[in-house]
Amino acid sequence: RSLTVRASSEPINPNIKKDVDKVVDTVFPKDLDGKPQAVYCRCWRSATFPLCNGAHVKHNQATGDNVGPLIIKASD
Amino acid sequence: RSLTVRASSEPINPNIKKDVDKVVDTVFPKDLDGKPQAVYCRCWRSATFPLCNGAHVKHNQATGDNVGPLIIKASD
Ligand code: FES
Ligand code: FES
Repeated sequence: RSLTVRASSEPINPNIKKDVDKVVDTVFPKDLDGKPQAVYCRCWRSATFPLCNGAHVKHNQATGDNVGPLIIKASD
Repeated sequence: RSLTVRASSEPINPNIKKDVDKVVDTVFPKDLDGKPQAVYCRCWRSATFPLCNGAHVKHNQATGDNVGPLIIKASD
Protein backbone atom coordinates (compact mmCIF):
# COMPACT_ATOMS: atom_id res chain seq x y z
CA ARG A 1 0.00 0.00 0.00
CA SER A 2 1.28 3.42 -0.85
CA LEU A 3 0.21 6.95 -0.13
CA THR A 4 -0.03 9.21 -3.16
CA VAL A 5 0.54 12.88 -2.44
CA ARG A 6 -1.83 14.74 -4.70
CA ALA A 7 -0.79 18.13 -5.98
CA SER A 8 -4.40 19.20 -5.62
CA SER A 9 -4.30 18.94 -1.83
CA GLU A 10 -1.98 21.91 -1.39
CA PRO A 11 -2.16 25.60 -2.23
CA ILE A 12 -0.26 26.36 -5.43
CA ASN A 13 0.30 30.06 -4.76
CA PRO A 14 2.90 30.56 -2.02
CA ASN A 15 2.86 34.32 -1.71
CA ILE A 16 1.21 36.38 -4.46
CA LYS A 17 -1.42 38.84 -3.21
CA LYS A 18 -2.38 36.67 -0.25
CA ASP A 19 -4.52 39.53 1.02
CA VAL A 20 -7.12 38.99 -1.69
CA ASP A 21 -9.62 36.12 -1.91
CA LYS A 22 -8.90 35.40 -5.56
CA VAL A 23 -6.13 36.69 -7.77
CA VAL A 24 -7.64 37.50 -11.16
CA ASP A 25 -5.74 39.56 -13.72
CA THR A 26 -6.92 41.11 -16.96
CA VAL A 27 -4.88 41.72 -20.10
CA PHE A 28 -5.89 44.38 -22.59
CA PRO A 29 -4.43 44.78 -26.07
CA LYS A 30 -2.75 47.98 -24.92
CA ASP A 31 -0.78 46.01 -22.34
CA LEU A 32 1.28 44.51 -25.15
CA ASP A 33 2.48 48.04 -25.76
CA GLY A 34 3.28 47.47 -29.42
CA LYS A 35 5.29 44.33 -28.71
CA PRO A 36 4.57 41.17 -30.74
CA GLN A 37 3.82 39.11 -27.61
CA ALA A 38 3.68 39.06 -23.83
CA VAL A 39 4.35 36.07 -21.57
CA TYR A 40 2.11 35.48 -18.55
CA CYS A 41 2.93 33.37 -15.49
CA ARG A 42 0.97 30.26 -14.55
CA CYS A 43 3.38 28.93 -11.89
CA TRP A 44 2.67 31.59 -9.25
CA ARG A 45 6.39 32.03 -8.59
CA SER A 46 7.25 35.01 -10.78
CA ALA A 47 8.63 38.13 -9.12
CA THR A 48 6.99 40.06 -11.96
CA PHE A 49 3.58 38.35 -11.68
CA PRO A 50 1.27 38.38 -13.62
CA LEU A 51 4.15 38.33 -16.13
CA CYS A 52 6.47 35.33 -16.41
CA ASN A 53 10.08 35.91 -15.37
CA GLY A 54 11.33 32.37 -15.97
CA ALA A 55 10.80 31.22 -12.36
CA HIS A 56 8.86 28.20 -13.67
CA VAL A 57 12.22 26.65 -14.68
CA LYS A 58 13.46 26.47 -11.08
CA HIS A 59 10.05 25.26 -9.85
CA ASN A 60 9.97 22.48 -12.46
CA GLN A 61 13.51 21.40 -11.64
CA ALA A 62 12.87 21.40 -7.89
CA THR A 63 9.60 19.48 -7.99
CA GLY A 64 9.53 17.49 -11.23
CA ASP A 65 6.61 19.58 -12.40
CA ASN A 66 6.02 20.64 -16.03
CA VAL A 67 4.29 24.00 -15.86
CA GLY A 68 4.91 26.93 -18.15
CA PRO A 69 3.51 30.30 -19.18
CA LEU A 70 0.70 31.49 -21.41
CA ILE A 71 1.99 33.48 -24.36
CA ILE A 72 -0.29 36.16 -25.74
CA LYS A 73 0.36 37.16 -29.32
CA ALA A 74 -0.56 40.57 -30.71
CA SER A 75 -1.48 39.20 -34.13
CA ASP A 76 -2.30 35.90 -35.79
CA ARG B 1 8.75 23.79 16.73
CA SER B 2 6.55 23.48 13.69
CA LEU B 3 7.01 22.26 10.16
CA THR B 4 5.81 24.61 7.46
CA VAL B 5 4.70 22.89 4.27
CA ARG B 6 5.72 25.20 1.48
CA ALA B 7 3.56 25.26 -1.63
CA SER B 8 6.72 25.66 -3.65
CA SER B 9 7.98 22.20 -2.72
CA GLU B 10 5.30 20.33 -4.62
CA PRO B 11 4.25 20.10 -8.25
CA ILE B 12 1.27 22.35 -8.96
CA ASN B 13 0.05 20.54 -12.07
CA PRO B 14 -1.55 17.19 -11.15
CA ASN B 15 -2.35 15.86 -14.60
CA ILE B 16 -2.28 18.22 -17.55
CA LYS B 17 -0.09 17.04 -20.45
CA LYS B 18 2.28 15.18 -18.17
CA ASP B 19 3.93 13.72 -21.28
CA VAL B 20 5.53 17.06 -22.15
CA ASP B 21 8.46 18.71 -20.35
CA LYS B 22 6.80 22.10 -20.16
CA VAL B 23 3.21 23.09 -20.88
CA VAL B 24 3.27 26.36 -22.78
CA ASP B 25 0.19 27.67 -24.56
CA THR B 26 -0.19 30.52 -27.01
CA VAL B 27 -3.23 32.73 -27.51
CA PHE B 28 -3.81 34.51 -30.80
CA PRO B 29 -6.37 37.24 -31.36
CA LYS B 30 -8.35 34.86 -33.56
CA ASP B 31 -8.78 32.52 -30.58
CA LEU B 32 -11.19 35.02 -29.05
CA ASP B 33 -13.38 34.26 -32.05
CA GLY B 34 -15.17 37.61 -31.95
CA LYS B 35 -15.97 37.35 -28.25
CA PRO B 36 -15.19 40.30 -25.96
CA GLN B 37 -12.96 38.19 -23.70
CA ALA B 38 -11.57 34.75 -22.96
CA VAL B 39 -10.69 33.35 -19.54
CA TYR B 40 -7.52 31.30 -19.15
CA CYS B 41 -6.73 28.86 -16.33
CA ARG B 42 -3.84 29.37 -13.92
CA CYS B 43 -4.80 26.68 -11.39
CA TRP B 44 -3.96 23.66 -13.56
CA ARG B 45 -7.25 21.98 -12.62
CA SER B 46 -9.51 22.93 -15.50
CA ALA B 47 -11.01 20.15 -17.62
CA THR B 48 -10.94 22.65 -20.49
CA PHE B 49 -7.33 23.75 -19.99
CA PRO B 50 -5.88 26.12 -21.14
CA LEU B 51 -9.29 27.72 -20.64
CA CYS B 52 -10.73 28.25 -17.14
CA ASN B 53 -13.82 26.20 -16.31
CA GLY B 54 -14.25 27.44 -12.74
CA ALA B 55 -12.28 24.58 -11.16
CA HIS B 56 -10.19 27.14 -9.25
CA VAL B 57 -13.18 27.64 -6.92
CA LYS B 58 -13.07 24.06 -5.65
CA HIS B 59 -9.27 24.14 -5.42
CA ASN B 60 -9.35 27.36 -3.37
CA GLN B 61 -12.03 26.00 -1.05
CA ALA B 62 -10.21 22.71 -0.53
CA THR B 63 -6.79 24.19 0.15
CA GLY B 64 -7.28 27.76 1.33
CA ASP B 65 -5.55 28.99 -1.79
CA ASN B 66 -6.47 32.20 -3.67
CA VAL B 67 -5.69 31.52 -7.30
CA GLY B 68 -7.75 32.64 -10.26
CA PRO B 69 -7.68 32.99 -14.02
CA LEU B 70 -6.15 35.43 -16.48
CA ILE B 71 -8.79 37.26 -18.47
CA ILE B 72 -7.84 38.35 -21.96
CA LYS B 73 -9.87 41.21 -23.37
CA ALA B 74 -10.35 41.75 -27.09
CA SER B 75 -10.31 45.53 -26.81
CA ASP B 76 -9.27 48.24 -24.39
S1 FES C 1 7.57 32.42 -14.06
FE1 FES C 1 5.66 31.47 -13.74
S2 FES C 1 5.24 30.54 -15.66
FE2 FES C 1 7.13 31.50 -15.98
S1 FES D 1 -10.22 26.63 -13.67
FE1 FES D 1 -8.14 27.09 -13.36
S2 FES D 1 -8.15 29.24 -12.99
FE2 FES D 1 -10.20 28.76 -13.33
